[in-house]
Amino acid sequence: MPHIPLRPNFFLRRRYLPFPFLLQPKFIHEHSFPSSELDLSNPTFMIYGSNTGVGKTLVSTGIATSILSGSEPSHCLYIKPVQTGFPVDSDSRFVYRKVSEILRTGKPRGIFASNRVVKASKEVLNAATELSMDNIEEGLGFRGSCCYEETVVGKGMEEGKGFKLICLTLYGWKEAVSPHLAVEREGMAVDDSLLREELGSWLRVSVGGEKDGGDEKGAVWRLVETAGGVASPGPSGSLQCDLYRPFRLPVILVGDGRLGGISATISAYESLEVRGYDTVAIVLEGLGLQNEISLLSYLRNRLPVFVLPPVPKEPSNNLIDWFSESSKIFSSLQEVMLSYHRKRIQSLHDMRKKASNIFWWPFTQHKFVPMEIVTVIDSRCGENFAIHKVRHNKEMLVSQFDACASWWTQGPDAILQTELAREMGYSAARYGHVMFPENVYEPSFRCAELLLEGVGKGWASRVFFSDNGSTAVEIALKMALRKFSFDHGLTGFENVNSSGIDEIRVLALNGSYHGDTLGAMEAQAPTSYTGFLQHPWYSGKGLFLKPPTVLISMEIWNLSIPDCFESDNFGKDDLQFSSYGELLSRDRDSSDVARCYFSYISNQLLEFSASNPNKYIGALIIEPVIHGSGGMHMIDPLFQRMLATECRKRRIPIIFDEVFSGFWRLGRESAAELLDCLPDIACFGKLMTGGIIPLAATLATETVFNAFRGDSKLIALLHGHSYSAHAMGCAAAVKSMQWFKDPTTNINIEHGEGKLKELWDMKFVHHISSLPAVKRVVALGTLFAIEIRAKGADLGYASLQASSLVQQLREDGIFMRPLGNVIYLMCGPCTSQHFCSQQLIKVHQRISKFSEAWVKESQFDQTYGNQIF
Amino acid sequence: MPHIPLRPNFFLRRRYLPFPFLLQPKFIHEHSFPSSELDLSNPTFMIYGSNTGVGKTLVSTGIATSILSGSEPSHCLYIKPVQTGFPVDSDSRFVYRKVSEILRTGKPRGIFASNRVVKASKEVLNAATELSMDNIEEGLGFRGSCCYEETVVGKGMEEGKGFKLICLTLYGWKEAVSPHLAVEREGMAVDDSLLREELGSWLRVSVGGEKDGGDEKGAVWRLVETAGGVASPGPSGSLQCDLYRPFRLPVILVGDGRLGGISATISAYESLEVRGYDTVAIVLEGLGLQNEISLLSYLRNRLPVFVLPPVPKEPSNNLIDWFSESSKIFSSLQEVMLSYHRKRIQSLHDMRKKASNIFWWPFTQHKFVPMEIVTVIDSRCGENFAIHKVRHNKEMLVSQFDACASWWTQGPDAILQTELAREMGYSAARYGHVMFPENVYEPSFRCAELLLEGVGKGWASRVFFSDNGSTAVEIALKMALRKFSFDHGLTGFENVNSSGIDEIRVLALNGSYHGDTLGAMEAQAPTSYTGFLQHPWYSGKGLFLKPPTVLISMEIWNLSIPDCFESDNFGKDDLQFSSYGELLSRDRDSSDVARCYFSYISNQLLEFSASNPNKYIGALIIEPVIHGSGGMHMIDPLFQRMLATECRKRRIPIIFDEVFSGFWRLGRESAAELLDCLPDIACFGKLMTGGIIPLAATLATETVFNAFRGDSKLIALLHGHSYSAHAMGCAAAVKSMQWFKDPTTNINIEHGEGKLKELWDMKFVHHISSLPAVKRVVALGTLFAIEIRAKGADLGYASLQASSLVQQLREDGIFMRPLGNVIYLMCGPCTSQHFCSQQLIKVHQRISKFSEAWVKESQFDQTYGNQIF
Repeated sequence: MPHIPLRPNFFLRRRYLPFPFLLQPKFIHEHSFPSSELDLSNPTFMIYGSNTGVGKTLVSTGIATSILSGSEPSHCLYIKPVQTGFPVDSDSRFVYRKVSEILRTGKPRGIFASNRVVKASKEVLNAATELSMDNIEEGLGFRGSCCYEETVVGKGMEEGKGFKLICLTLYGWKEAVSPHLAVEREGMAVDDSLLREELGSWLRVSVGGEKDGGDEKGAVWRLVETAGGVASPGPSGSLQCDLYRPFRLPVILVGDGRLGGISATISAYESLEVRGYDTVAIVLEGLGLQNEISLLSYLRNRLPVFVLPPVPKEPSNNLIDWFSESSKIFSSLQEVMLSYHRKRIQSLHDMRKKASNIFWWPFTQHKFVPMEIVTVIDSRCGENFAIHKVRHNKEMLVSQFDACASWWTQGPDAILQTELAREMGYSAARYGHVMFPENVYEPSFRCAELLLEGVGKGWASRVFFSDNGSTAVEIALKMALRKFSFDHGLTGFENVNSSGIDEIRVLALNGSYHGDTLGAMEAQAPTSYTGFLQHPWYSGKGLFLKPPTVLISMEIWNLSIPDCFESDNFGKDDLQFSSYGELLSRDRDSSDVARCYFSYISNQLLEFSASNPNKYIGALIIEPVIHGSGGMHMIDPLFQRMLATECRKRRIPIIFDEVFSGFWRLGRESAAELLDCLPDIACFGKLMTGGIIPLAATLATETVFNAFRGDSKLIALLHGHSYSAHAMGCAAAVKSMQWFKDPTTNINIEHGEGKLKELWDMKFVHHISSLPAVKRVVALGTLFAIEIRAKGADLGYASLQASSLVQQLREDGIFMRPLGNVIYLMCGPCTSQHFCSQQLIKVHQRISKFSEAWVKESQFDQTYGNQIF
Repeated sequence: MPHIPLRPNFFLRRRYLPFPFLLQPKFIHEHSFPSSELDLSNPTFMIYGSNTGVGKTLVSTGIATSILSGSEPSHCLYIKPVQTGFPVDSDSRFVYRKVSEILRTGKPRGIFASNRVVKASKEVLNAATELSMDNIEEGLGFRGSCCYEETVVGKGMEEGKGFKLICLTLYGWKEAVSPHLAVEREGMAVDDSLLREELGSWLRVSVGGEKDGGDEKGAVWRLVETAGGVASPGPSGSLQCDLYRPFRLPVILVGDGRLGGISATISAYESLEVRGYDTVAIVLEGLGLQNEISLLSYLRNRLPVFVLPPVPKEPSNNLIDWFSESSKIFSSLQEVMLSYHRKRIQSLHDMRKKASNIFWWPFTQHKFVPMEIVTVIDSRCGENFAIHKVRHNKEMLVSQFDACASWWTQGPDAILQTELAREMGYSAARYGHVMFPENVYEPSFRCAELLLEGVGKGWASRVFFSDNGSTAVEIALKMALRKFSFDHGLTGFENVNSSGIDEIRVLALNGSYHGDTLGAMEAQAPTSYTGFLQHPWYSGKGLFLKPPTVLISMEIWNLSIPDCFESDNFGKDDLQFSSYGELLSRDRDSSDVARCYFSYISNQLLEFSASNPNKYIGALIIEPVIHGSGGMHMIDPLFQRMLATECRKRRIPIIFDEVFSGFWRLGRESAAELLDCLPDIACFGKLMTGGIIPLAATLATETVFNAFRGDSKLIALLHGHSYSAHAMGCAAAVKSMQWFKDPTTNINIEHGEGKLKELWDMKFVHHISSLPAVKRVVALGTLFAIEIRAKGADLGYASLQASSLVQQLREDGIFMRPLGNVIYLMCGPCTSQHFCSQQLIKVHQRISKFSEAWVKESQFDQTYGNQIF
């Protein structure tokens, strides 16, 4: 942050204009992610320093000069979001004046340059009013709340041939301390999201006006210079590397050429790395210590390191010689930046073009995915993707809420993501992956402990790790079938042929889903997804029952009981509820509905065993509370509880597949809490690691475990995967499990409550449930789902309608994927209610309009409409 | 690195002793990992600085004083491994003198203190000889190659009641520059492993002699003070945080209290984190900027931050007042360190005790795993584990080579591990996990590209991602069976019952293994591992052939053809080979053996289809070259090639299961290169990510892919896992694939060769193959395996023998797991030949002795022995 007295005679003109003036940023308030539209067409870089006093502003000045005076000159916008020591220190003023000064020494083309501060603390303003106009020449000129100066260098501005250098300080505080201390002492607090929003708005302003040829004249470069070091606090106290992370601007890191500078530079680089920044180049002052050699060697030439000549301690001519000496280096640096910028754009385009030629996407009919609809994801920050788009020939990065929670895995907000990232670096460095069987290491141990204290509390005593939901279910099935065989005396033979057993099946529900490996598929009822073409070995090894479901429609929780139940004489009290809580009530255990369920379940089991005494039901497997993949159907908790009760009576092991429902997805750490009954075995995955890395676990009771103890290895559970209990997965799970349930880290947990706050505003939920086009709504925990009403039997139409809604909502900044005719929002356990409401409002708006259109277009007339609504 | 003139009158005695003297470290040369035995009983900490000049030595001095003068005093060993500016600057001298001086100001108990330098550069020695004895008082006394001084404070040393402070500088250079520059200018190069070995040896010396009550008197504290900042280079140019990483000593980080110090401290902390260090506390000089508040807030109270009073710029009394003022802080810091130390030990013990009560280990009969044999892994560094042991009542960390490559996953050496760790931090921060279907993001895209350019080169055009070998195989089977149905007109019906097809099976080899999920199990021939107890649904959906195998014994590569082949009349030339290269020769394609294979294969296929025309072979699935889990059996490559040829003729899709063999495991990037034939589908996992994180891929040709294209989603491959193509896994794979094949990063790759150097010294391999107790040896790529000869039919005995060998080799620093009666070593693709030879020598020694005993104990007499050997 060099402070060099400037000579007044360098400036041709200086005007004082009232605020606001010239450039006006467009504020976009509705998105919490500020760079909701970042124009990538313009090379935009962030200047970070590996320490204070390493010469960030000199580097900014050098780059800006190169941009304006190179062979392909461009406009340049320089932004210093946060300045302390202001106005005595003002980096934007330095850049403005020094660039003008340097350009004047050559044969300048027309350059218009200006500098201003947008907001200054009261202390700054008080100091400013005390200054006489005589001091203006010292650069402290203030008029009202804003300081503004401008100048023109060379000729040609009037003919629109010139270029602009716009320098801005967004916030200025008087005291030369860290910004968070300056706020403490001088006020003018700025929270992170506001600062980001303002920076984002300024990054979006058009610099080249119409008259001057507009931005089309060439790329408009944008440089954002931070304050202090990479991890120095900003005004709110957040570290700048965290504060600006949502923009993820490519970084020019100003290294440290002094003794100790290798360490400072590498550590700063690594702090940027573990926040997902791309560092484009390192530039440092050469002080004879050859720090650059160590840096290049350590970084394995991953990025260029530029060395500037030493800055004279007592500059005889205001550094003009130094800048002249450095100009080739800055121009090389600018070339590297430009080349990086072009490659980045090229790479985003190439990926979109080539992806559908080399990927084989899961669950995807490639014929339906033309190149244009491929989504290019640049990065994620907490709940949001940053997505590449081309709009009106402009390259954009657009923020979209990941409403499908990346296949229901996601948990982290931006803070947890950073914490997890560092944890992942640590675990990889400490353990990489280490072998699990007969071994123990801290993350695996802590993870198992937390699982047993959390989702396994009160029943589980053993943890078997695997990689995904499918394998967790395969393991659960092996456990359950063994336990059943053990309990029912069906052991002691080599294979099923010699056993006298015709078949062991599972008891499962229609519409339930447990994964795509063959064993998991076998526990799923036949659908078009299990046909011969999908797997010729699938046979459906289950007794599959039809479950009663629950749906919110017209603001009421309605029970829907399949025809196969003897359910003719139920009243409104049996079938309608005002809240989910009522459905959970244990009073229902002795209701008519319960009796009806009991008779259905026991009849089914009886029929099955009557058909062949050598056929057995060896396990119950259910997705508690909600059938996820099956279409977000809410199952009557009473029915699932009764299934478990009946199976326990018959010593049939009970498996809860909580891969989807576990870890607060449905508002409780385990969905079993909602059912108020316990399994013998349960499967977890997805959210377990917070949503960052694959890991799964199958939990079991000690009696299940004991069915595998014995004097032979062949009695053991001979199942395992290479990365069983891998350290990084376990470490992520430990961090996430603790984070989610701790009220000090998760704002949605109240002390002692053990459940999430209601994240979806029930007012909107109920209103949406009353719309004509909405068949049902589900709102539980982090999940909000809507089933679009199909017109008649025309499901295809409905699905198409869902798709069009999804497209609209993507435009609104919500990345959705439909599940047939169901659309849904899924947030993380620590996503704020405010964020959820913002999303729900967008959905409400779209679905209301959609519903109006739906009514109009309906082929059914008013009569039908009246019947339904 | 404070340099404060010391007053001579502080020292009671000063002796000059010839080198060597007093303490002698025990050098352990055979292990490349220096801390092969680190005594954990003694609290041992590393003092790192977040920058130069932040007061590391003041902190060391304060802690040492607290250790020696606290309520529970202990001996203290202080080591400065690397000192530049020596002897004018000497941190060990400062600690020695200052602690003595401080203690003298109180009522000291008996303290013996000494300081010495172990090695000094010529420039240091030259300077020293120029010094007159008058200068000795300035602490520059040299006699021969060593500087030594000692003193006694207080009384009681003679009665054995006192304590010792031993201060050491291991290497001293004269110029006050970074150590790597000092080496450049003054010589005395020290490579990293030597420096680590020396430091390790000094850390192992016994400080409290017998007379003084020994180390049992109490813990002997050890402090190691680094030079400069966390990432400052050491003598070889390696960063100190990398150089000392194998010790992974807990860290006291000296923070920076100056402006910019928050950033410097956090970045330094993060550089330690992404190298797997545990930072115990941060301590910094308070300079009124309240940096500690920001640090505590950012670190979420994960670790304590201590604030020292400002160090007077012109210390009036040699800082004695400052140390007195700081003494309570240092004593609190020491308490935190002690408490951390005790918790660490406690936690290692607890984990061993509790692990077998909460884990359900894969492939493990828990009844056979008593608590004592559980291995507690503290960390890994490259190829080595650091394992906790208790020996003679001492807590030890012992280094062991991970010879089972953690279930065959491992690839990284220490350098790649650090690179991958940073990459993992970056990917987690940039992407976390983002949804894959219909999307693209850089790591997934680059990973797919590299797979297709590498292991898929010449045949594959599509990549389907999953999580592990099992799922990759399940997907491969779905692909192959569909492709077969498509090619043979077996599509167009809903399920197998309506198809008129009785069954579609796979063609596979006995002893082959493809994973533990049901679908993968079905492709495996029945064994005791697939019995009713393991999975009542397993039926064995294959035509399973017996393969001819290859084994090195008596220095010769022998072909062993099963009896079921018509192989009576083969000669020595057909069955014996001098190298694996001969076995690979395409000349064998027209040999008698080839004709024999052809007739066996075609007869088997004919018989199968003759038995029932509605039964089909829908896929060939093989593990190319070696059956891993089946016991490291090498299959005749000619036979596997002919199987592929015959299947291709019949339009049966060919699956290579390369989960084990892929990515250089067998010396080539793909084992298909050895077979010299191409699959239609191949599965990869394990080493793909370098061995750090689960990820798997199934590669396929475009014609396979096209069998899933169509106008309905139901024709698509409806298979997927939550974390499909997760960003971190793909990023690790990209890094590792590039690293392994690049000669500039992998020393085992020669330019243009495309294969690994021979890692196992064939001299030893052949010698081992000739030992009586050795049935066969396999040496290929990173794999070296030995099958112990079973005596008669007593396989149990042999297995037991293998177990005892494994136990012995663990004592030698090799962590092995037997595979039945097979023991093996498995290194990474970039492990040095030198390292491999070191391990092979140990195995050779043990197996030779074992073999001698085996011969003696043999129940068969000399006659039998002669027959065999």
